[in-house]
Amino acid sequence: MAVAARKPLNLVPFVSVDHMMRIVLQLGVEPMLAGIAGYIEQDFRRWELFDKTPRVASHSHDGVIELMPTSDGVTYGFKYVNGHPGNMRDGLQTVTAFGVLSDVATGYPLLLTEMTILTALRTAAMSALAARYLAPRGSECMALIGNGAQSEFQALAFKTILGTHRLRLFDVDPAATDKCVANLAGKGFELVRCGSAEEAVEGAQIITTATADKQYATILTDNLVGAGVHINAVGGDCPGKTELHRDVLLRSDIFVEYPPQTRIEGEIQQLADDHEVTELWQVIAGKAPGRVSADQVTLFDSVGFAIEDFSALRFLHEQLERAGHYQDLDMIADPDEPRDLYGMIQRAAVVHA
Amino acid sequence: MAVAARKPLNLVPFVSVDHMMRIVLQLGVEPMLAGIAGYIEQDFRRWELFDKTPRVASHSHDGVIELMPTSDGVTYGFKYVNGHPGNMRDGLQTVTAFGVLSDVATGYPLLLTEMTILTALRTAAMSALAARYLAPRGSECMALIGNGAQSEFQALAFKTILGTHRLRLFDVDPAATDKCVANLAGKGFELVRCGSAEEAVEGAQIITTATADKQYATILTDNLVGAGVHINAVGGDCPGKTELHRDVLLRSDIFVEYPPQTRIEGEIQQLADDHEVTELWQVIAGKAPGRVSADQVTLFDSVGFAIEDFSALRFLHEQLERAGHYQDLDMIADPDEPRDLYGMIQRAAVVHA
Repeated sequence: MAVAARKPLNLVPFVSVDHMMRIVLQLGVEPMLAGIAGYIEQDFRRWELFDKTPRVASHSHDGVIELMPTSDGVTYGFKYVNGHPGNMRDGLQTVTAFGVLSDVATGYPLLLTEMTILTALRTAAMSALAARYLAPRGSECMALIGNGAQSEFQALAFKTILGTHRLRLFDVDPAATDKCVANLAGKGFELVRCGSAEEAVEGAQIITTATADKQYATILTDNLVGAGVHINAVGGDCPGKTELHRDVLLRSDIFVEYPPQTRIEGEIQQLADDHEVTELWQVIAGKAPGRVSADQVTLFDSVGFAIEDFSALRFLHEQLERAGHYQDLDMIADPDEPRDLYGMIQRAAVVHA
Repeated sequence: MAVAARKPLNLVPFVSVDHMMRIVLQLGVEPMLAGIAGYIEQDFRRWELFDKTPRVASHSHDGVIELMPTSDGVTYGFKYVNGHPGNMRDGLQTVTAFGVLSDVATGYPLLLTEMTILTALRTAAMSALAARYLAPRGSECMALIGNGAQSEFQALAFKTILGTHRLRLFDVDPAATDKCVANLAGKGFELVRCGSAEEAVEGAQIITTATADKQYATILTDNLVGAGVHINAVGGDCPGKTELHRDVLLRSDIFVEYPPQTRIEGEIQQLADDHEVTELWQVIAGKAPGRVSADQVTLFDSVGFAIEDFSALRFLHEQLERAGHYQDLDMIADPDEPRDLYGMIQRAAVVHA
């Protein structure tokens, strides 16, 4: 935590949206995805020592605002994130986020950062990391259903981490696919536009669903899922928001991040509370098998867990000094005498007079 | 929420420590305490419509980091706050905080602010507001035990809101009392330095305890508490941190903010889980009696609840445009096409090249 140690204690490094874009461009999207995946992998291997809690959600008619805290005993992190499907209609982001990393020993923040972009990166990094343990070997072709804000990051993460370079794209809105195709042009993909989910899954070893409706949807029905496929279900991530038909779940071996959260928010909210699932960290730590046969259908029921954000914050914090893209915020009151907060304000009157 | 409505959506007003000091000096400490108390009173009257949850605490050997969210269905707020008793030894604040107010309809933040100073103000405003309903009429004299960072704010809040202008001060560290006396000089108080808690409570109608140790302490024993006194217990606010002997609790009518939180964190952690307490909001809303007799011992077992922070954030947000003390932070990614987060980053490459 060298960055904070050299600064006055009241100052907290802040990474704005503009700073984050500069950092992504400086490091490159694909190296950053691979870097974050590496940090997630490290943290999933030491999963047991983290302080874990389901995210604290405040639901409203229009969406949800959530806080996602965790700690490894040395560093504490949390993310603020909203999910408002109707925002897109008004030209706003469906999901926006910011986050904080703090020193457990003092409680002082070490970093404040935008996390809309960082969340997009970590979600894709997490998906590809999970697929490295669950997808068929040599998965070259992925169906990408839902071509919104998350789609390009998913595509690049799978190419970087698994070598998946053939993409079959479908979105109910062809304009979304247009955008995705334009953004991925010249990035080393073979891109196929499809007219339906059914067409998209043809020949794909991996099916990624990343749609955004806050409602029970059925993006994938049972007849679309062939033997041996890995499903990466990204879009279902809150109560009442799912993407897969229940029959797909019943045929799949299901892998999740943190069961107490996924049972509320994930695809498995459609199943009984005691339906068997495997915790992904156990696969990554070598304590449980991932894919065991070629015709097995594996499903990563991704909802996003606090430890992934922690990993992304930790990655960013490590880059910060080198990248240099941040500003210092005067966020923590730091009187010369810690018991004299009142006196600090009174003395400021002299300075400001 | 006029401030945010006029700004580009990616910008969030940020109130730094320096801004907050300017706002406090511009409004004046006492008017600001009275203003925040008024907002808390309004919000306690509509307590039932708030989304309530005990704070989400991450405990470590050295202290605790907490998130305190709430929402009234229109606006959402949360506070990040730490409590690290050992910090003072290292020249750091025991308690530091920052907070956010957001629009429930979109999930977008409306305000980010330092809350170390704001928490000190709201804690004192809450104490004095509670005492207006619970302390004996015409309480002119208060014992103030613990003369640390919270003490001057308590003193000023009680003077402004109840007219309590005689203070009997005691701290185990005489230097803390020196500081408190110096800071309150010329502010309209009659100040008496006392050599013990026993001396401090002589003739006081109100006893405020605001000490900071994270341990079971006994600042007040039963023999120190006379009939008719109101006790304002501020310092006990996490598991294992209490200030009053259990016998004091058994003799008192106990008023609390939010029982599920206070039973874990407050003085009443020493009592049975079903020990009768009154929720303060019910007193303020006229649904339960406050003080009913002159010889009753009343106790406000204050731990600090999210709605009080929400009230303070709401107060600050209302002042913001008039005061003008803030800066805009580029905190929310806002692409022209909300589904094109990736494209926004790529286009930034052109701008930054």
